[in-house]
Parts: sequence; C-alpha cells; structure tokens
Amino acid sequence: MKHIADSTVRRLSAYLRFLEDFETRGLTTISSDELAKRGGTTSAQVRKDLSFFGSFGKRGLGYSVPELAGRLREILGLGREWKVIIVGAGKIGAALARHHGFQQRGFTITAVYDADPQIVGLDLDGLAVRDAGHLERDIHRDHPDIAVLAVPEQAAQAVTDRLVRAGIKAVLNFAPAQLQVPPEVTVKTVNMAMELEGLSFALTNRE
Amino acid sequence: MKHIADSTVRRLSAYLRFLEDFETRGLTTISSDELAKRGGTTSAQVRKDLSFFGSFGKRGLGYSVPELAGRLREILGLGREWKVIIVGAGKIGAALARHHGFQQRGFTITAVYDADPQIVGLDLDGLAVRDAGHLERDIHRDHPDIAVLAVPEQAAQAVTDRLVRAGIKAVLNFAPAQLQVPPEVTVKTVNMAMELEGLSFALTNRE
Repeated sequence: MKHIADSTVRRLSAYLRFLEDFETRGLTTISSDELAKRGGTTSAQVRKDLSFFGSFGKRGLGYSVPELAGRLREILGLGREWKVIIVGAGKIGAALARHHGFQQRGFTITAVYDADPQIVGLDLDGLAVRDAGHLERDIHRDHPDIAVLAVPEQAAQAVTDRLVRAGIKAVLNFAPAQLQVPPEVTVKTVNMAMELEGLSFALTNRE
Repeated sequence: MKHIADSTVRRLSAYLRFLEDFETRGLTTISSDELAKRGGTTSAQVRKDLSFFGSFGKRGLGYSVPELAGRLREILGLGREWKVIIVGAGKIGAALARHHGFQQRGFTITAVYDADPQIVGLDLDGLAVRDAGHLERDIHRDHPDIAVLAVPEQAAQAVTDRLVRAGIKAVLNFAPAQLQVPPEVTVKTVNMAMELEGLSFALTNRE
C-alpha cells in the first residue's frame, strides 16, 4: 500500500463521523460536496482521499452512506476490538481510564498501570490499577495492541523502551517528550502544552 | 509576517524544550545538528525553521543556548501571562483544571465553567466551578485569552459560538467536533478518538 499521510487518515476519521451522523438521520446517499462542506475541505480533496482506497460512488449519484461508512471502518481498522493499556494513572491517565467513549469504537481499556505503590490497587471505574513492574509479564500474556503513555516526562522514554521490547507496536503518548522508537512502532503524541503554545503563537503573531 | 505552518510552530516548541534542557545542564552553545538529532529532523530543517525569524547563530560556532531560548520564547508568545478558561468540568475538563504543568509556561487557568447545577460550585484544587450561564459576563469582565473546550460533542458548536461572540480568539478543543469559527479565531483540536483511529489504521495497514 502507498504511504498515506497522517492528515489524510485524520480526514478519513472525520468523514466517518459525518457519515455516521447522516446514518442516524436516515440519509442514504451523500455527495463529495456535502462531505467536503462538513469537513471544511474541498470536494476534490474528498475524492482524492477516497481514491487511495479504490473506487467509491457513482458520478452524479454520490456515495452510498452505509457502504462508504462500512468501507471507512474497514480501512481504519475499526471492524475489530483493540486492547488498550494505560501506563500512568495520574490525573490524565485516570481520566482516560474512566472515559467510556472509546469503547463504542472498539478500543477496550484492558489494564491501567502505575509505579507508585500508593496508586497501585486503586479502583478506576472497575479497573484496578496494576503494578507497573508487571508490564512485561502482562503484555506477554494479554497481548494488548496499543499503549497509552501518561507518565511523567522523565520516565517517558524508559517506559517506552520497555513497552517496545515487550512487543507493543502502537503508542499514544501524552507525556511532553519526543519519543525514540524503532520504525515498526507508531507513536502519536498528544501534547497539550504544545497546543497551547500554538495558540499563544497565533495570538502573538496575528495581524 | 509570512504564514508559518503549524508543523513549524510545533518544532519551535520542541526546540525550546531541548534548549531549556540544555540550559539546566549548563550548556551554552548548540549546533543545528544537535537540535536536529534531538528533534528527529535534519539540520537543514532546523536552520530553515529558525531562518523564518531572522538570523541566529554564527557559522561554525552554533547557536547561543540562552539567546536562542529567549528568542523562541518571544516568538511563541511565552514572555507574558495568558489567561485560560476551561469550559466543561467533566472528567477531561476537571483533569485539565487540576493539572499545574501549564502554569510554568505562563498559561494561568483563571476559571472553570459547567452547565450542570450538580457540578457548579465544586472545588477543583482551589478553583470553584462557575455557572456556564455567566460565561459572557465573565469574559467581558476578565478578558481571558484562551478557552479550553471540554464539553460534549452536541454542545461544542453552540458553546464555541457563544465564546466567539463574547470575544475569544483562541480555542483549544477537546470535543470530538469540527468547529466552525471566523478566520480571526484560531482553533486547535485534541481528539483522542481520532489519534486512536490513526493507530488502528497504522496497525491494520502496516506491511
């Protein structure tokens, strides 16, 4: 498969959301124009994004909403359950563990870890925080697909190295750190401080 | 000023972090090579990123760490205090309100709002949750710079419209919604579900 840019994948996620919204409203077909309008992009961009994955829709008739939604779910890998572990049960980690919105998309949080003995054993909406010392043992046994990293900056790389050695191939990183991983591992970083700095940059440098 | 891409601004934030790390370790000069290595990019990219903002460093001598750090703080608008309000005191909003890591960068959380009478009045580490009905009055009085949006998807656009009408020019959006704003308003979206979908895409489509 050709390399697909992150920005394209994000737009596919967005299109899927709009299609699901249309589905609940009972609409059966949608034009690239309408999808573009909802996504703040152009219909040429929509057609280009979708053309990566084969041919969809009929000229003049638009796309079939359930068909395109089904195909996008398949492309995005949403037709199955993904096991997600959270490493770090501080404020952000605990809030994520308690957030049930990911489940409906097939992302099941199967375990939460912390290194602090005061936190290990706490109950987070039915998940008992496990001892981070057992990470490797548990990963070998349970085969989680995705690790959410919510540890302090200083611990981030060392914990990532342990996750990668244990076989994790996908990391969602909330630590304010640039993680080094081998090429077969995918990292997405959510960095709120950097987003805030992007805003202060915009406020400072606007006309 | 030329248009600066988001990805450039993110790299500037990353360079500043590395420089601050070098500062605490007592290093006074740094080459573009070293900055590139830390940032997972090339020295040509580092020089290009910095050249947007005038000339830095001396050929062969590298950059002065404190001088470049100071200049980056200025470019990113970090030389002052930014007042941040959080709208929505659910799990994510409350975790953000309690997170003290933004303060050291000059982002002060001045107020937290919720529409739920059960939540209004709760204390979040010293901030009492205010009634979202008072948003407009408070914004006119207190002039916050940035609004963090942590409300449910269905409320996101309506709350954004209220914030924009009241004069907010920068929004950090945690709601899973594509917000429509006028061109003078900057929105950054942090969408964990989309990041997870980016990972499931990578896991599904890798070789």
